[in-house]
Amino acid sequence: MNNNQIVRDNVPLVHCITNYVTVNDVANALLACGGSPIMADDIDEVSEITSISNTLVINIGTLNRRTMASMVRAGKTANEKGIPVVLDPVGAGASGLRNEAVENLLKEVKFAVIRGNLSEVSFIAGLKVSTRGVDTSAADSGNDPVAVSRAVAEKFGCVAAITGAVDVISDGKRLARIHNGVAQMGKITGTGCMLSGVIGAYVGACPDAFSATVSAIASMGIAGEMSWAANGEKGTGSLHIGIIDALSQIGDETIEKRGQISYEG
Amino acid sequence: MNNNQIVRDNVPLVHCITNYVTVNDVANALLACGGSPIMADDIDEVSEITSISNTLVINIGTLNRRTMASMVRAGKTANEKGIPVVLDPVGAGASGLRNEAVENLLKEVKFAVIRGNLSEVSFIAGLKVSTRGVDTSAADSGNDPVAVSRAVAEKFGCVAAITGAVDVISDGKRLARIHNGVAQMGKITGTGCMLSGVIGAYVGACPDAFSATVSAIASMGIAGEMSWAANGEKGTGSLHIGIIDALSQIGDETIEKRGQISYEG
Amino acid sequence: MNNNQIVRDNVPLVHCITNYVTVNDVANALLACGGSPIMADDIDEVSEITSISNTLVINIGTLNRRTMASMVRAGKTANEKGIPVVLDPVGAGASGLRNEAVENLLKEVKFAVIRGNLSEVSFIAGLKVSTRGVDTSAADSGNDPVAVSRAVAEKFGCVAAITGAVDVISDGKRLARIHNGVAQMGKITGTGCMLSGVIGAYVGACPDAFSATVSAIASMGIAGEMSWAANGEKGTGSLHIGIIDALSQIGDETIEKRGQISYEG
Repeated sequence: MNNNQIVRDNVPLVHCITNYVTVNDVANALLACGGSPIMADDIDEVSEITSISNTLVINIGTLNRRTMASMVRAGKTANEKGIPVVLDPVGAGASGLRNEAVENLLKEVKFAVIRGNLSEVSFIAGLKVSTRGVDTSAADSGNDPVAVSRAVAEKFGCVAAITGAVDVISDGKRLARIHNGVAQMGKITGTGCMLSGVIGAYVGACPDAFSATVSAIASMGIAGEMSWAANGEKGTGSLHIGIIDALSQIGDETIEKRGQISYEG
Repeated sequence: MNNNQIVRDNVPLVHCITNYVTVNDVANALLACGGSPIMADDIDEVSEITSISNTLVINIGTLNRRTMASMVRAGKTANEKGIPVVLDPVGAGASGLRNEAVENLLKEVKFAVIRGNLSEVSFIAGLKVSTRGVDTSAADSGNDPVAVSRAVAEKFGCVAAITGAVDVISDGKRLARIHNGVAQMGKITGTGCMLSGVIGAYVGACPDAFSATVSAIASMGIAGEMSWAANGEKGTGSLHIGIIDALSQIGDETIEKRGQISYEG
Repeated sequence: MNNNQIVRDNVPLVHCITNYVTVNDVANALLACGGSPIMADDIDEVSEITSISNTLVINIGTLNRRTMASMVRAGKTANEKGIPVVLDPVGAGASGLRNEAVENLLKEVKFAVIRGNLSEVSFIAGLKVSTRGVDTSAADSGNDPVAVSRAVAEKFGCVAAITGAVDVISDGKRLARIHNGVAQMGKITGTGCMLSGVIGAYVGACPDAFSATVSAIASMGIAGEMSWAANGEKGTGSLHIGIIDALSQIGDETIEKRGQISYEG
């Protein structure tokens, strides 16, 4: 696969309606992997911005009533124009507002990729969850990520990716497992958000959303490993910066060489 | 004291309603010291998010009418549930809106800890201040931090912390002075905000809010010293990242060894 | 010229109404060059905050209806008080909302400096543009930056700066070209926003807005070169942090020595 080269050659413009906690990292991660970010969330401009973009990424990390409406409008525009939409359902299951927002988005917008942790994607699969904040809860950790990702992929006709110690990606037919990454990435805020942005770049440039998502997730895991090797001793601030460094240097050769990806189905 | 170990063992979830300038650093500082951040500010979810959290941190750095109401609602929920609330009154005294917000919060919500610079806490003490932006003004620098922190602690039944060249912490009875930190931390935005987040993690996990606040403030000063020693020559960008690095590596032993803390009362 | 020394001696307070993507970097860049940032965007406090500031910087990167009104109000206050205002018209030409906002700001507020890329400033000059997101579009790259900057400077009685591979600054009479910087700065989000903040610090402290803008732009280009030399091999995360590092260490001597500035007119 040469998915990263396709991203770097095409520089997909990725419209992100995302949270204000990690937005800077999302933009820098997108640039590092070869994409181009644009952030805009006012309802009076999101349709226009989506229309000139190659992908729309919706991240509900710091949801509010104002941007909830913008997300739906942008999503509908993307669907009309055939622009792929990525959903990062941050904290789904943790509050009624988030649940309402996710349910409404899933009703109104067709997504190309849904990526979250096991609690978040379990919620989308219709399972009972006990999300604790923005991390997978212990109570949900017994759910089977393969079954959950397959159920979501089939139900919504999309690529469903559950990221964690092992990442599981399904499009309903194919299934991939990725064993890259280091646990210490959980000590940095926004690795999930950055990944969703990077997935946006890949699916905005590459023809096969499943393959694009697998490459994007592998590249983020590898970036974590590379940064951990280079910066782990220094601490989590350097680990954070080193992930962006690595993303800017990873190409298909590195993904090929270091990716621990297995397929079935 | 083993306050940091208690934080790392319990991983307190800290709900932050905070400004968009430094929010990423607040989240990463919280993770670095052993806590877990969640940012949410919509009035329709703050009560739920506070309810699942161990601490609520309210920071008025980029205040607006929408989040002012959310802060009050979340604060009331925290009080009902016995969840400690930390206030960072950024820029109190600099505008009528900030003064109104702080006065209203102090009327409606009981705080466990109030932390600010000398101008900000002087305002809360009812003194006339001339806050210049977000830094302590020269005009206020003659105020006695010991008297101010004691007055605020007594008036509001809380821990009052004034951070500056020397940090002063009072709970109305006990008083601590901390001499850690380096002046160059003032050349990085958000060291105060990060500290308020870190205090949130400590008071969310440790039984004694005074002792928890002292440990948190000492750890931040030590982090500044460690980063300055490692990165000072490079510049303020590296100093910034190095503070997160240090926070992720500081434990109780380091606080014990390097903390320049004196007590009275 | 000793413009940077003037900034460091006077520590101008710079009120920024800016986007949430790059706001942290803007604050840190402002501090690094010797200024002091304050971010505030609620319509009920912007006039007061502008009134205590030395400069107002308006950046429309993540525009919304709420802050559009705040920008106008703050701008009018600045004009009344004789406080210089800097405009960064991020993405002008990319959506109707941005165009409307820029046109309204130019009608209601007198700017001391307008800084953008060639697409954005071409839009302000009244040319037809095809802005693609937040970067200069290929279609606009044939516009003559000298003619465009002169036209904008004359039309609005301001300093007009177009930054790109070569930066062009005009005040209608004088013209400067700056050849500093490295292309890889485009792989980091916010170098333009940071620069607009830094210009705010310079024009808030220095008497001549044209000379102040030239110094600020040269310092940012030199910071990019210095960081590229020190960090280029590591990747874009380190390049980003190194720019803040360099800004904190650059003084007039460095600008004098490394600045590739030519004047005419």
